[in-house]
Amino acid sequence: MAAKSNLQLIEECDNFPYHDDDPEFYERHMRNYHAFKVNGCNAVLGYMPNNVVEKFPWIENDWKVDSQSRIVTLMAAPDATPEVRNEIMSRLLAEAVHQKTFEVLNGWRNEMYPIYAPGGIFLMEMERCASPLFGIISYGVHMTGYIEDEKEGLKLWVGRRSKTKQTFPNMLDNTAAGGMSTGEHPYACAIREAAEEASIPEAVFEERAQSVGVMTYFYVRDARAGGEIGLLQPEIEYVYDIRLDADHVIKPCDSEVEDFRLWTVDEVRESLKQGEWKPNCAVVVIDFLMRHGILTPENEPDYLEIVARTHRRLPFPKAKFVL
Amino acid sequence: MAAKSNLQLIEECDNFPYHDDDPEFYERHMRNYHAFKVNGCNAVLGYMPNNVVEKFPWIENDWKVDSQSRIVTLMAAPDATPEVRNEIMSRLLAEAVHQKTFEVLNGWRNEMYPIYAPGGIFLMEMERCASPLFGIISYGVHMTGYIEDEKEGLKLWVGRRSKTKQTFPNMLDNTAAGGMSTGEHPYACAIREAAEEASIPEAVFEERAQSVGVMTYFYVRDARAGGEIGLLQPEIEYVYDIRLDADHVIKPCDSEVEDFRLWTVDEVRESLKQGEWKPNCAVVVIDFLMRHGILTPENEPDYLEIVARTHRRLPFPKAKFVL
Repeated sequence: MAAKSNLQLIEECDNFPYHDDDPEFYERHMRNYHAFKVNGCNAVLGYMPNNVVEKFPWIENDWKVDSQSRIVTLMAAPDATPEVRNEIMSRLLAEAVHQKTFEVLNGWRNEMYPIYAPGGIFLMEMERCASPLFGIISYGVHMTGYIEDEKEGLKLWVGRRSKTKQTFPNMLDNTAAGGMSTGEHPYACAIREAAEEASIPEAVFEERAQSVGVMTYFYVRDARAGGEIGLLQPEIEYVYDIRLDADHVIKPCDSEVEDFRLWTVDEVRESLKQGEWKPNCAVVVIDFLMRHGILTPENEPDYLEIVARTHRRLPFPKAKFVL
Repeated sequence: MAAKSNLQLIEECDNFPYHDDDPEFYERHMRNYHAFKVNGCNAVLGYMPNNVVEKFPWIENDWKVDSQSRIVTLMAAPDATPEVRNEIMSRLLAEAVHQKTFEVLNGWRNEMYPIYAPGGIFLMEMERCASPLFGIISYGVHMTGYIEDEKEGLKLWVGRRSKTKQTFPNMLDNTAAGGMSTGEHPYACAIREAAEEASIPEAVFEERAQSVGVMTYFYVRDARAGGEIGLLQPEIEYVYDIRLDADHVIKPCDSEVEDFRLWTVDEVRESLKQGEWKPNCAVVVIDFLMRHGILTPENEPDYLEIVARTHRRLPFPKAKFVL
């Protein structure tokens, strides 16, 4: 396999087209999607591939599907509570599961992902594995544990995913990461994942971890994600650095991670080239290397493009954790 | 004056519309501009307001102005050298200066700004003060000197601009900053500006400074920038942090800065609210506060919008400092 550039790795996560690159292509491309809306809210909440819209066992009165203007609307009353909208969504998804309409629904997790209206107002929630069918934004946290070695410089705690994991088995991973369910805040989610995946005690996280930014990109799912190809998954990943003492050893806690090892910066860069990283973890580690002065405008030819592509302004309303 | 939110400060620098926010408005808005091109290169290099195009004393054979498709093309041969293109540009600007066509040309600096083709190929250069007439990307560096005080936490070296400076007099400024001329690389430019503006010796910069990212935004010039209003200035600012010893004192070197003082994080945040910062320096200091865990998703309501707006993917070809 040819060595991958860092930009190629980014493009595996941010692969939805940009209007500015070719406005005519973009207009044509958008005709492949329906907008997902909720009655009473003007904003588009996600894009659904037309073939997904065709397959869904829509329930009359609950849903309005306008094939002319390509809009799918959840028809709760405009002033309905989130619970009412959630029931409409659950009813539809239950029917789709029953009819085995979509492969992605086999990955049911009983984990709810939130959907927001403009201003960060909570609108409703839906089962995590169904979210790419509606193309809504999904939220998560990623963190990198590292040490500053006097001789070898920065070293990163890198995990290797279990060989038996359903998605991206055996690939390299950040120190910890995970999705944010309804009601969770980034910091609380990060503390939880640090403990669950990397056995980092809460007190250590609170002392050593720092919020350092957010990665945003627009992912078109491919075969490696599992399930239907071409579903949209715009993602927002809040990022934390955890500066650890040299003698702090990261250990797997659950069965998702095979092992953890301290990697030098050179080892990390080489493994990126070899395509060994789970794509959205590569995004986070490339950002880490940029913020820590390892990847610079003078040694990374695609510096500007990488930064812009990993901080994409997603075209849907977003969460606010303080109003 | 009402307190300003951080997003409002960002919007003072990133105020060109986004297609996704309102595609129809965007299409209409774009009819106010001509695309600036160079013969033989397909890419658009900048946007010129129609009234600027009307005023320019275009020289026949040197330039082709197509008012139908709204394109201004510099008509050097497709395989011309940069020097040939530069001569065409210089000839035009000399005539515009002679005729006193544009106010911004009164700020002539004898400083050349580069223009790149796709792939980071150097196409040509032009006088700095003329660049907003063509709406080309301008490049610069900004840096923040800081200390970690055991009692008071992070403290930032903040400059106050001279009261007699033509632009943004008396406003707060980063530790050092400056524009990148043709041929200069970000790191070399940063070293030079650190010495010139903040008396930071090269050796200190090399030991203490770190490349930490890049801010990109699309600025529509207002009255405060001086000269014609509504000219476009898409900007790319490479960012450096300089972690200094507590006893390192930053002193002004030239007359551009009135004084330097160490500010606590609370003082910095309060001065942002009061609108005391030069707008594009506010962008850099807000990014600093985000990367250092001071502004977080839990205390900054516009966290996501701020990050996306300050890492905008500009629609023109960009520099590469390694090919």
